[in-house]
Amino acid sequence: MSDHPVLNYISAGAWSLVQPLLSNRAKDLLITLIDFMENDVLPAEKLFHAQIPTHPPEARWASVPPILEELTLRAKGRGLWNLWLSGGDFQGMAGGQGGGLSNLEYAVMAEIMGHSAILAPQATNCSAPDTGNMEVLARYGTPEQKEKYLVPLLKGDIRSSFAMTEYGVASSDATNIRNTTALPSSNPDKLVVKGHKWWITGAGDPRNAIHIVLAMTDPQNPSPHKRHSLVLVDPRSKGVKIVRPLTVFGYDDAPEGHCEVVYDGVEVDVDSGVVGGLAGLGKGFEIIQARLGPGRLHHCMRTIGIASRALEILLQRVSDPNRKTFGKYLRAHGTVIADIAHCRAEIDAARLLVLAAARRIDVVGAKGAMQDIGIAKFTVPSMALKVIDRAMQVHGAEGVSQDTPLAYYYASLRTLRYADGPDEVHIQQIGKNELKRVEKLDQRFERIKKEGDRLLEANGKAKAKL
Amino acid sequence: MSDHPVLNYISAGAWSLVQPLLSNRAKDLLITLIDFMENDVLPAEKLFHAQIPTHPPEARWASVPPILEELTLRAKGRGLWNLWLSGGDFQGMAGGQGGGLSNLEYAVMAEIMGHSAILAPQATNCSAPDTGNMEVLARYGTPEQKEKYLVPLLKGDIRSSFAMTEYGVASSDATNIRNTTALPSSNPDKLVVKGHKWWITGAGDPRNAIHIVLAMTDPQNPSPHKRHSLVLVDPRSKGVKIVRPLTVFGYDDAPEGHCEVVYDGVEVDVDSGVVGGLAGLGKGFEIIQARLGPGRLHHCMRTIGIASRALEILLQRVSDPNRKTFGKYLRAHGTVIADIAHCRAEIDAARLLVLAAARRIDVVGAKGAMQDIGIAKFTVPSMALKVIDRAMQVHGAEGVSQDTPLAYYYASLRTLRYADGPDEVHIQQIGKNELKRVEKLDQRFERIKKEGDRLLEANGKAKAKL
Amino acid sequence: MSDHPVLNYISAGAWSLVQPLLSNRAKDLLITLIDFMENDVLPAEKLFHAQIPTHPPEARWASVPPILEELTLRAKGRGLWNLWLSGGDFQGMAGGQGGGLSNLEYAVMAEIMGHSAILAPQATNCSAPDTGNMEVLARYGTPEQKEKYLVPLLKGDIRSSFAMTEYGVASSDATNIRNTTALPSSNPDKLVVKGHKWWITGAGDPRNAIHIVLAMTDPQNPSPHKRHSLVLVDPRSKGVKIVRPLTVFGYDDAPEGHCEVVYDGVEVDVDSGVVGGLAGLGKGFEIIQARLGPGRLHHCMRTIGIASRALEILLQRVSDPNRKTFGKYLRAHGTVIADIAHCRAEIDAARLLVLAAARRIDVVGAKGAMQDIGIAKFTVPSMALKVIDRAMQVHGAEGVSQDTPLAYYYASLRTLRYADGPDEVHIQQIGKNELKRVEKLDQRFERIKKEGDRLLEANGKAKAKL
Amino acid sequence: MSDHPVLNYISAGAWSLVQPLLSNRAKDLLITLIDFMENDVLPAEKLFHAQIPTHPPEARWASVPPILEELTLRAKGRGLWNLWLSGGDFQGMAGGQGGGLSNLEYAVMAEIMGHSAILAPQATNCSAPDTGNMEVLARYGTPEQKEKYLVPLLKGDIRSSFAMTEYGVASSDATNIRNTTALPSSNPDKLVVKGHKWWITGAGDPRNAIHIVLAMTDPQNPSPHKRHSLVLVDPRSKGVKIVRPLTVFGYDDAPEGHCEVVYDGVEVDVDSGVVGGLAGLGKGFEIIQARLGPGRLHHCMRTIGIASRALEILLQRVSDPNRKTFGKYLRAHGTVIADIAHCRAEIDAARLLVLAAARRIDVVGAKGAMQDIGIAKFTVPSMALKVIDRAMQVHGAEGVSQDTPLAYYYASLRTLRYADGPDEVHIQQIGKNELKRVEKLDQRFERIKKEGDRLLEANGKAKAKL
Repeated sequence: MSDHPVLNYISAGAWSLVQPLLSNRAKDLLITLIDFMENDVLPAEKLFHAQIPTHPPEARWASVPPILEELTLRAKGRGLWNLWLSGGDFQGMAGGQGGGLSNLEYAVMAEIMGHSAILAPQATNCSAPDTGNMEVLARYGTPEQKEKYLVPLLKGDIRSSFAMTEYGVASSDATNIRNTTALPSSNPDKLVVKGHKWWITGAGDPRNAIHIVLAMTDPQNPSPHKRHSLVLVDPRSKGVKIVRPLTVFGYDDAPEGHCEVVYDGVEVDVDSGVVGGLAGLGKGFEIIQARLGPGRLHHCMRTIGIASRALEILLQRVSDPNRKTFGKYLRAHGTVIADIAHCRAEIDAARLLVLAAARRIDVVGAKGAMQDIGIAKFTVPSMALKVIDRAMQVHGAEGVSQDTPLAYYYASLRTLRYADGPDEVHIQQIGKNELKRVEKLDQRFERIKKEGDRLLEANGKAKAKL
Repeated sequence: MSDHPVLNYISAGAWSLVQPLLSNRAKDLLITLIDFMENDVLPAEKLFHAQIPTHPPEARWASVPPILEELTLRAKGRGLWNLWLSGGDFQGMAGGQGGGLSNLEYAVMAEIMGHSAILAPQATNCSAPDTGNMEVLARYGTPEQKEKYLVPLLKGDIRSSFAMTEYGVASSDATNIRNTTALPSSNPDKLVVKGHKWWITGAGDPRNAIHIVLAMTDPQNPSPHKRHSLVLVDPRSKGVKIVRPLTVFGYDDAPEGHCEVVYDGVEVDVDSGVVGGLAGLGKGFEIIQARLGPGRLHHCMRTIGIASRALEILLQRVSDPNRKTFGKYLRAHGTVIADIAHCRAEIDAARLLVLAAARRIDVVGAKGAMQDIGIAKFTVPSMALKVIDRAMQVHGAEGVSQDTPLAYYYASLRTLRYADGPDEVHIQQIGKNELKRVEKLDQRFERIKKEGDRLLEANGKAKAKL
Repeated sequence: MSDHPVLNYISAGAWSLVQPLLSNRAKDLLITLIDFMENDVLPAEKLFHAQIPTHPPEARWASVPPILEELTLRAKGRGLWNLWLSGGDFQGMAGGQGGGLSNLEYAVMAEIMGHSAILAPQATNCSAPDTGNMEVLARYGTPEQKEKYLVPLLKGDIRSSFAMTEYGVASSDATNIRNTTALPSSNPDKLVVKGHKWWITGAGDPRNAIHIVLAMTDPQNPSPHKRHSLVLVDPRSKGVKIVRPLTVFGYDDAPEGHCEVVYDGVEVDVDSGVVGGLAGLGKGFEIIQARLGPGRLHHCMRTIGIASRALEILLQRVSDPNRKTFGKYLRAHGTVIADIAHCRAEIDAARLLVLAAARRIDVVGAKGAMQDIGIAKFTVPSMALKVIDRAMQVHGAEGVSQDTPLAYYYASLRTLRYADGPDEVHIQQIGKNELKRVEKLDQRFERIKKEGDRLLEANGKAKAKL
Repeated sequence: MSDHPVLNYISAGAWSLVQPLLSNRAKDLLITLIDFMENDVLPAEKLFHAQIPTHPPEARWASVPPILEELTLRAKGRGLWNLWLSGGDFQGMAGGQGGGLSNLEYAVMAEIMGHSAILAPQATNCSAPDTGNMEVLARYGTPEQKEKYLVPLLKGDIRSSFAMTEYGVASSDATNIRNTTALPSSNPDKLVVKGHKWWITGAGDPRNAIHIVLAMTDPQNPSPHKRHSLVLVDPRSKGVKIVRPLTVFGYDDAPEGHCEVVYDGVEVDVDSGVVGGLAGLGKGFEIIQARLGPGRLHHCMRTIGIASRALEILLQRVSDPNRKTFGKYLRAHGTVIADIAHCRAEIDAARLLVLAAARRIDVVGAKGAMQDIGIAKFTVPSMALKVIDRAMQVHGAEGVSQDTPLAYYYASLRTLRYADGPDEVHIQQIGKNELKRVEKLDQRFERIKKEGDRLLEANGKAKAKL
């Protein structure tokens, strides 16, 4: 077992715990994935970036780096495709490619992909927001919608966006989303979509062929959770205006981008334009809830991988003989060694939280795993930011520049502290869940105290105060 | 599975991960243990403390609370005895009682015992320093030494101390220990032990029948690691002087105590007085190394349990209607809820580190698991102190008083940040281990860079800087 | 200036800032105080503790160490008496002794006294709760009450307690205090005090001659802030029952103690038994508010001194050649040096907060300084605990024992995180105060934005989004 | 006093402490500065950014926003020019403009300028690296060098760079700098500068007219501190190659920039090309040391201002009715309020450290203030990053975008944790300085212990252990 190449990626303790729960297929696939990462993906990173023009803006957003297409083909050829399809419930549609893994198995693989966090997930069709969108279409789409959008998404022929966050609105409370509507028009077969969204990831991508838009379709519904539907908008429709790419720190993430988008009276068909057709009307919230659980965990998995890569970069830097200061290797300083140990411990602990949550999903489903997922959700990104920050610090100025990926990692992961719900919301949720134990605890302590008092009395001692 | 009572103690995610690795015997034993904790141990805590006289000092150190004897009998009767005997290698000597569990199985049980951290380990003969001492005797003792000390220890008839730390010496570097000697006397059959030790846990206990003393037997040996042996000293021998109990914060831990002890010319037999007999001479360091691995982890396991109990106490306090301030339950304050969530997440993460390390020992042995054990060693006590500190804080003054166990927990666990090696030593060790990866990483990055440069060149791009 | 001995106690930066604001008298007094500390107080610490019997309990609580009486005489003789009397408004009553300092001047002196936190404040009659009680009596007492209690307190002939916290009640919201009453009895000249208090500091002291008790005198008053009065109870009265001393992390603080006290129908005179006489009825809350401001800051001042002493102890320990590990002084480890630097920086920053708050009181009075006092209140104890914890850690086991004062310091200061209001209450208060700036900020940003938009327009640029 | 507008910027406590130490001129100037900030600088920020073209790159680096020139004129007109000239020693050269303030006075002003951290320092000729460069020229330049470079810099007619950090070298240990040389050429009147530097701030600025380059001029000198000189290079000389701008978290800081620069055989005159002329040869290190002290503190001062601005932005955001979640203002959440309180306390404490250090410079000079400066140096940027991070978090995605200045602030200040020496170096230095107290402490404790033992003995008690 000690020879499994996965031990170059994850801690021995975690592997010892997880290994008996992996199928032989997963263990083999893991070896294939690692080989793909080491020999195809990681060496291609520089070229990928070099193939994105820095200017003019028109060129920057116009095309996808050819090396990505090439990696995509290779991944498909080796069965490393749609690995995230854990449930396997719409595996047939994927044309027999990938999928069928347990969440625990995928967790290990997603972490490894995280070592090349931009390239590997895209090359294997495992990247957000497509995965979540495919899940939505597979579970709730009509047969026609599946044919039209899910099949090409599963093949990697198109890409997609999920348009939820509204401009000027505190969208972390989704019931606030009320400025985007999809209401009947004069044409009875059409709904008209009007709204102003932003942070629409992937909306800059030239391959993007579908926006799933959360919009109010029934503003008067007495239940605030039944007013919204998911509307399917073709980004090339009349009325769709990509206002600008937003930057994250100074990065624009071209050609994918995170865009501000105005839907200015876009017409969609009443029957086919709503996810699930007419039956899907008012189900917007129900569907997005279902979308979020495993998606949050996928982010966490990859984030562990990014943190691990940052630690590798740190380790090499502090061992670089050109970086000696005052005659000493950086690695010879006690505080550097202590930082490394803390990185190691924090990564290992966070990984185990993710693996436990993934396993929990396998055993009882995503809903029953919400506590474990939530803990991972608010723990992992902060952990990774700390690790990356330490890695930046040992690099001095170089650490924040374009010459290492660290500052970019930092910027990207900083967004995970509010994406899919800010840390604060998850923290409050976990705390409140934990408080649900109190009733049972009270009964238990009551029982223990009573028996304790009986013992004290029987032995001639005064009753306890508390 | 959701009905297993262990879910009242450990997180669902951890259980999902671990459960398939537990034997049916362990799962049954777990149920028995929980029943014993809930119905016997926890209700007996107050009586246990009430049965220790507060003064005069003579009485305080003279006897063991009768309730402890009673619990011991019950534990034996239910097979909850010597559970820590994970290796099973000297199980025969335990008379078929307990043992035989994997480290992973014991980890779960030890955590549960940690909920009554003073009583439960003693009641089940799973408490330090006896467990480590039994391990030493079992692995390295002569048949006579086993008969004389190991058998009664396994039965719980006697207790023992491990005398390592020296007064006035930085004992965390064990090679510093040089002021205690066991050297030949005028009587050729005897060694004479002279030295000044302190922090000898259990030396105050009236049941204590043996001190295992680390002493220099070969001061001139060129190797600093071969100068010491473990000497067996009967505490009732002439020349053994219990100077005073040391306090931990203001607690003296009577009747066990942590004592300052002078060995003022104590005679021991040359052949039977050294662990392992003549063959054991010079093996002091080798043996204590072997003793520390699982022992460190046992402390961690119990510590998770203590932290969990502190969180339970916190949860109840903040839900107490008598503790409303400004019209609000404490539990209604966002900062309190956030504290609870952090406690939950930190306990869960720490537990997983301990379980992974325990599993790692099961797979490759303690030596191969040192990295995982070390991470748990320096992570778990700090985590628990944070949890307990939060629990104290919500209690106000009551939290530091004798009316809750919190301040005592805090004091006890604070000692774990230096016992068996201070955090700092473990942190440096883990950091240095991690740095051993660099050579391999350098080769790997060299390979990736080369292939990357080839790709850049082949695609007409400038080589990357780094 | 560089030769002023105060530079052995406080940072050069702080002194540079503060020195021009001190009177010559204060600068001279500072020199006298330092001399007293170095030559009288600090050498007397061990004897003080040795003069408190460890048992039996009766003896432990019966007398005051003679060395304290001696130090008291010396302090008086040198004008180091009642220095806390910053306002000087009742200085006359102090018989010309001490006092008359600004709060800033006293802040520097109180920090220096904090280096011997138990002994120095008592030896100079600057210790809580007496100082606050004297302030109450001086400001609100009747002439008779001043004569009877304030004069002997100012002379140091008696000591006093302040009985506020109620057993089983969340007293950090003082309006919760309702289980102690002082109501008319059958004797029209008497009030009958009934109640159950705890954490009554000094109630164990044999010199204690007066409890100031917060009790409900007008339970039906519509305003919850006018129901209480401060009642003067002689602890030797019939009906006063000292139930037990409470422990703080195992320490009982004999002979002063923090006691649980039952007032079981204690009779006090209607006219003379209420602070302020009949006019003081219903003014309990008003008076305790006034008592708290500078008192909180006095605690902070001393706490800086305790932290500084802990750092001194740390510095010496890590420089002790007997404490070398692995051939290195502890002080040679980078992590130890970093810890020292952080201690230094944190102490220096906290001191400046205290000095700024003290100066603020001097300029605008305690009420106007509440924001600065509040920040110091929640910042300083946590800082000091961190410093002490680091000092304990470099000592290993010795650091938590009776052989250094560190664990005792830790325990004492831990209580400051909830005494006079828990951190959480102060933090919320400071945050809310800060939020009061928003209205003004909104107007300001509105103005800036408007002008900014005008500039953009005038220069042919699009208006800014935000 | 309470009406001074500075109270909108700094805490009342700090102002109370500092106010008596400010001259009337400084207090008046402060009012002028605040007026300039509120009515000129802050409203101009958006226009300034709008006037920097986003592309093509040639345009982006070609010109300075006209609004900056306008502000510059206004600042000059109001006497807000060269305020950093604290020493006043070369004030004559500034043409009577500004200057002459104490460091303490300037500290308050620099903080206020920090509220518009890019614009205000430039508009008042108080921005790095020009201030440090002017200091170098004023103290060490020849009369001709002053005439040629210092005078136009003081007037704001040109800008300058300081080229120290070398590509591929750990420059935080300046003795490592050895790849840039300025050696005799075949032409005896010339030195030839060859080297590869990066992070040359301002090298992209079209106004830049001089690089001060740290180069080896005497590589064989036995003292590593005498091998270097500061060489004056005109950026338009033959052989100066601006390779590329470096990015900081994706920001390029155009038009100033932080550039990679190659000096590829640039010729400079032997006599006039070295700072100080021939006498300046070998004095590179001596001069840069002198340059760093107050410069580090200037950064800290401005950083406090940036943190304060971030807190203002946070306060407004959490009070925005459009940002309610789950029916509650963000400001109504306890955790948000607690975050605000911590921001407030941390800013206030850090400011006081800066003010104390500035005052210390005023009293004893920069050299004697190194401990106070060093503490500020490593404390302030980390504090500000925490404040900004909290401000980003309450904004969600918007906080990292181009729509608030927060992410840009974060990126800029992140660089201060290694610029002018990484935190780690300063922390070690402060720790080591503190350790210098030990000898004196040992003597003191020896004395105290001796006297203590005498007291114990005289009172019939056993001597203390320690």
